[in-house]
Amino acid sequence: MFTRIDHVGVAVRDLDRSVSWYETTFGLHVVAREFNEEQGVEEAMMHVADAPGGGSYVQLLRPLRDDSPVGKFLARHGEGVHHIGYGVDDVAAALADIGGKDVRLIDERPRHGSMGASIAFLHPKDTGGVLTELVQAAPRA
Amino acid sequence: MFTRIDHVGVAVRDLDRSVSWYETTFGLHVVAREFNEEQGVEEAMMHVADAPGGGSYVQLLRPLRDDSPVGKFLARHGEGVHHIGYGVDDVAAALADIGGKDVRLIDERPRHGSMGASIAFLHPKDTGGVLTELVQAAPRA
Repeated sequence: MFTRIDHVGVAVRDLDRSVSWYETTFGLHVVAREFNEEQGVEEAMMHVADAPGGGSYVQLLRPLRDDSPVGKFLARHGEGVHHIGYGVDDVAAALADIGGKDVRLIDERPRHGSMGASIAFLHPKDTGGVLTELVQAAPRA
Repeated sequence: MFTRIDHVGVAVRDLDRSVSWYETTFGLHVVAREFNEEQGVEEAMMHVADAPGGGSYVQLLRPLRDDSPVGKFLARHGEGVHHIGYGVDDVAAALADIGGKDVRLIDERPRHGSMGASIAFLHPKDTGGVLTELVQAAPRA
């Protein structure tokens, strides 16, 4: 079902500072930076490697509001890994498959993710404490 | 510096149950299962995809002792993402590079990791709360 580890989603307080840190320390580069109002975050995608069906990234997430999911995560846990995104070829098919296996879906239908991807989240209470995202990358131009 | 997201390290209470869950829910398969007494864990590597210089895995970690790092993590946080492993071509060179950049090293020298890899951990207090592992995969047979 999974084609790659698409990204590691990391909650951060200061996006510019974190981007700069990943650039300086690990030599990663930003390939996209965008606001996602629906999820209440500003995010930066830092490219790790190309991977089957897409790429692998560190996704740095700064909350736009304290009461957003990432804002609440930061208040409870501080900075750190917020979720893991796995690449799939067809997110709707993957959701239908997983939803039939006693895993609650945060998203019953795919929604808009980073860089034009179609994404959906699974409920961490049913996934061993790992907030898990399915990512179908946008078709390449 | 990084060639891939090598693995997502996940702390679990019951290794057999978690392996079975990843098999059933996501169709992942165990490619290695081993004890690492030094790190105080029994672990299962579940293959996600092939990737440059190695593979990408979910690494399920069951603590052998309550006072091991993963045992303490479970007591504090419950099950969830414990650390992220990034692939590198040369872990000693990567350590020398990163150690010169004000990042404390948990391991000054590489040590034994899963499936014959050479690995080293960086200190999460210097890496934005993300316990970060560098992984140089064993040469393929």
